[in-house]
Amino acid sequence: MNPTAISSQPLLLSDAEELRDLVESARRDGKTVALVPSMGALHAGHLSLVRAARAECDFTVATIFVNPTQFAPGEDYRCYRRTLDADLAALAALGVDVVFAPAVEQMYPDGHTTTVDVGGVALPLEGVCRPDHFRGVATVVLKLFHLAPAHVAYFGQKDYQQSLVVRQMVGDLDLPIRIRVCPIVREADGLALSSRNEYLSHSERRQALALSQSLRLASELYCVGERDAAVLRQRMREVFNSAGIGDIDYIALADRDRLEDVAVVGDETIALVAARVGKTRLIDNHLFDAPFAIHPAAR
Amino acid sequence: MNPTAISSQPLLLSDAEELRDLVESARRDGKTVALVPSMGALHAGHLSLVRAARAECDFTVATIFVNPTQFAPGEDYRCYRRTLDADLAALAALGVDVVFAPAVEQMYPDGHTTTVDVGGVALPLEGVCRPDHFRGVATVVLKLFHLAPAHVAYFGQKDYQQSLVVRQMVGDLDLPIRIRVCPIVREADGLALSSRNEYLSHSERRQALALSQSLRLASELYCVGERDAAVLRQRMREVFNSAGIGDIDYIALADRDRLEDVAVVGDETIALVAARVGKTRLIDNHLFDAPFAIHPAAR
Repeated sequence: MNPTAISSQPLLLSDAEELRDLVESARRDGKTVALVPSMGALHAGHLSLVRAARAECDFTVATIFVNPTQFAPGEDYRCYRRTLDADLAALAALGVDVVFAPAVEQMYPDGHTTTVDVGGVALPLEGVCRPDHFRGVATVVLKLFHLAPAHVAYFGQKDYQQSLVVRQMVGDLDLPIRIRVCPIVREADGLALSSRNEYLSHSERRQALALSQSLRLASELYCVGERDAAVLRQRMREVFNSAGIGDIDYIALADRDRLEDVAVVGDETIALVAARVGKTRLIDNHLFDAPFAIHPAAR
Repeated sequence: MNPTAISSQPLLLSDAEELRDLVESARRDGKTVALVPSMGALHAGHLSLVRAARAECDFTVATIFVNPTQFAPGEDYRCYRRTLDADLAALAALGVDVVFAPAVEQMYPDGHTTTVDVGGVALPLEGVCRPDHFRGVATVVLKLFHLAPAHVAYFGQKDYQQSLVVRQMVGDLDLPIRIRVCPIVREADGLALSSRNEYLSHSERRQALALSQSLRLASELYCVGERDAAVLRQRMREVFNSAGIGDIDYIALADRDRLEDVAVVGDETIALVAARVGKTRLIDNHLFDAPFAIHPAAR
């Protein structure tokens, strides 16, 4: 941690070899290296990862890359928000050491053919709704782990299944990196921060509260003793119905490690929801080992 | 290179963390690290890789692991020769620093689900005959690259397509490792060394010469000006027919980088053959940029 660097400008790199040289040099100097991968369009959720990285490691690399291979045809790859100047300013303010923002042609030159399939935890839920998504995620994350060989990589709990997929890959492929998963950051009314919230109209923004409200309801019911997954799922569905959200991808109560459906809810259970609000697909989740709580954005 | 260590005993490891610690410590000491992956049953072809590694690097890790995931059901995984004591003696005589020989349960603990697909160059030839083979190869090689982060890894040209698959993976996944491919080592009569040659009966051993003889013939025809791939393939097929080998998987004349069939043979062409002699499947190849030559085993 280097508080004096907080207002210095991070080094913006697009060259892979320069990035690796810098990270390896930091490692040789005995520094612990943090990696915070993102697709940019940074919000306070991302910045909470950067803050954790800055607090826990000596050298922080943030990456900004809208990865085409994790979007299906018809998804929002082309219109995904690109806000590089604002992202760089936010990362500079937090004292990030290096920002890596490569071009698509650099990450996937002509003739790139290799992919990583994690299987297992990548198969249910998002794996059903977005069949090639985690292949794209695992492949690009592995590339980034090779390009910026960090000690610790930071991911948000909002993409819970993604964090499990990355952990599984790291274990299975014997990667020497630790995965830290940081809590979901929410608006004051409960909405989980997401770069896609910007797509929502005023009325959709109100409807979108159904995701966090259904999780909060499930948590409250669990706290007063309800353990029947079918009951919780039904009560959660009613929240979506009341909000007028018909396009639900899943409302799942699953084992937090394997993401297999459970019949009886316990402290090892996670509730996960995915739904389309207007044209915008949103996800959220809640771990039952603690009551639903709102972690607001740090100022 | 450390000639004084030539008769010292290499350190035999089965623990992954010990291996990584040793390699990282060698790197910190400024040594260049070589990795020579094998499935054991070492012959002079493997040992030529070890010799190259010893000559070109400061610290040599050899791995011995019969990787179950690169064998299909019905292939020779169970009866693949395991000759650990002889392998260790041979590696000791060459001054290898570390031998890593993990258990299957360590490389693939229960719940291991991640795989790597290289696509492209992995798809034709062996990819057709052994559909899951290169997935198993790529996955285990990537694991070994993570466990023993070497500067250079050594592969034999006998498994030419494998060397292309590994190179493609290394490029696509941005791995900081150089791939060295060493020439095929042959018996005096031309038979390419293979651990599977031990399976051959006396008469099959004679038949097996068809592979190298067909390549030698193709080379000779090329040297006197024949450029028509169809003609070469036909003449090669006649060598197999004369030897009484009916079970030919492929006789290919292909681009040496992409393994796509060519109509006109040139210096960038490779001839690749695969056939079953009795129950034993053998492969061999020849690059047309130089005349067919026999590199005999070093003594």
